[in-house]
Amino acid sequence: MKKKTKKVNAAILIIGNEILSGRTQDQNILFISNWLNNNCGISVNEVRIIPDIEKIIISTLLELKKNFYYVFTTGGIGPTHDDITAKSISKALKVKYQFNKEAYAILQKYYGTRKFNDGRKKMAKMPKGSSLIYNPSSAAPGFKIKNIFCLPGVPSILKSMIDNCQRYLIKGKKILSYTLNVETVESNIAKELGKIQKKFIKNVDIGSYPFFRLGRVGVSIVSRSKSKKSLILCLNSIKKILKDKKLKFFKLENNQ
Amino acid sequence: MKKKTKKVNAAILIIGNEILSGRTQDQNILFISNWLNNNCGISVNEVRIIPDIEKIIISTLLELKKNFYYVFTTGGIGPTHDDITAKSISKALKVKYQFNKEAYAILQKYYGTRKFNDGRKKMAKMPKGSSLIYNPSSAAPGFKIKNIFCLPGVPSILKSMIDNCQRYLIKGKKILSYTLNVETVESNIAKELGKIQKKFIKNVDIGSYPFFRLGRVGVSIVSRSKSKKSLILCLNSIKKILKDKKLKFFKLENNQ
Repeated sequence: MKKKTKKVNAAILIIGNEILSGRTQDQNILFISNWLNNNCGISVNEVRIIPDIEKIIISTLLELKKNFYYVFTTGGIGPTHDDITAKSISKALKVKYQFNKEAYAILQKYYGTRKFNDGRKKMAKMPKGSSLIYNPSSAAPGFKIKNIFCLPGVPSILKSMIDNCQRYLIKGKKILSYTLNVETVESNIAKELGKIQKKFIKNVDIGSYPFFRLGRVGVSIVSRSKSKKSLILCLNSIKKILKDKKLKFFKLENNQ
Repeated sequence: MKKKTKKVNAAILIIGNEILSGRTQDQNILFISNWLNNNCGISVNEVRIIPDIEKIIISTLLELKKNFYYVFTTGGIGPTHDDITAKSISKALKVKYQFNKEAYAILQKYYGTRKFNDGRKKMAKMPKGSSLIYNPSSAAPGFKIKNIFCLPGVPSILKSMIDNCQRYLIKGKKILSYTLNVETVESNIAKELGKIQKKFIKNVDIGSYPFFRLGRVGVSIVSRSKSKKSLILCLNSIKKILKDKKLKFFKLENNQ
């Protein structure tokens, strides 16, 4: 990896038929994106959702691994037949799929006198050379190998583990974000907003999102930048056009 | 397109910085997947979420367009500077990005005596040769061109429009799905379930999903198939192993 020439960014790879089929509402994309942004200054630049099919996992992983600084996968590291992420990653990286001694010991201890059967043992199998991502809620660890971070699909377990990824991450500059909520419709400010975006094209990313809530129609103008100075300048330009148009902006949020 | 040799399937392409940044929880993937499955017998085989960047929209679209029978895009067809989906698709397909007469007339009528400004007019611009997907809630239509369906990002508007895609779709055989909820942990049934999956590998897709709810720990075993006969046979095999293990299955759902 040409580390120095690549921006610190990430892709998320959601592995699971249950998300693709519409059975389950994904919650992990939002959580991981926010966590990476807020804690690590790392932007997520692409997300893919793919089925539990080895060939597809391998080809997608190799592509994302090459194109992004980090890849976070969720799903497919449990004990059942459809949990094929660890094995697929081993194949993709051409390393052995084998028991990780530390993971095995953790699980053996966790299950104690309860049966440590094949399914449970399977959760200690991962690509040779992996480092563990500890799991404080249900023991079975995730793993990190090269620039790939493998996490489980169950949101509550993923959330309990994610801070344990931090030690492996190079952090980027935090992305600052401000939202101006305006009582108007998008088309009323589209032209002027477009001009401001052009002016700040290098440093600020302006998004415009209509909303309908609490009986109000409005637009959230989200400005995002790594430069506080540019963000403030941009924000002032936006406020000026809103004032010129005599539009009320009734809330100032600070989020993604 | 080699229509006859390809399975009727779909990919979803979510275009929007707000989803990637973790600002907004996507709701469209779940909705579109369910709609396609239940109304059209079409499986979603891949989802991508990408930023509002022309180059990325073009390359991703060309790839998905080639690999899947249908592509559904959401987002980026509004009036503002960051709404670049229609223009990007025109470029990808190498057709003109121009006013659609019918869309123009619809919007002109909708805005009536209100100002029909450039932002509003922009929503009538789309790739030459597009067919409209009517929008009963806020007039601005989506469009269909070749095997690509472009829908807005706002979930409530998308929901109001999606039935208008049906006329353009070739339907597949509906995927049947049954969920057995079992009071156990995954590792307790992993081995047997794996054997059943192997036996039914051609026709049934079995997924195993742990859950923790209402103080209960359990596993949802989801069996999906286009063949009712295979599904019933598979389901009977699963029930048999559950009975052999003296496990209670306390609910039978019928969903994705």
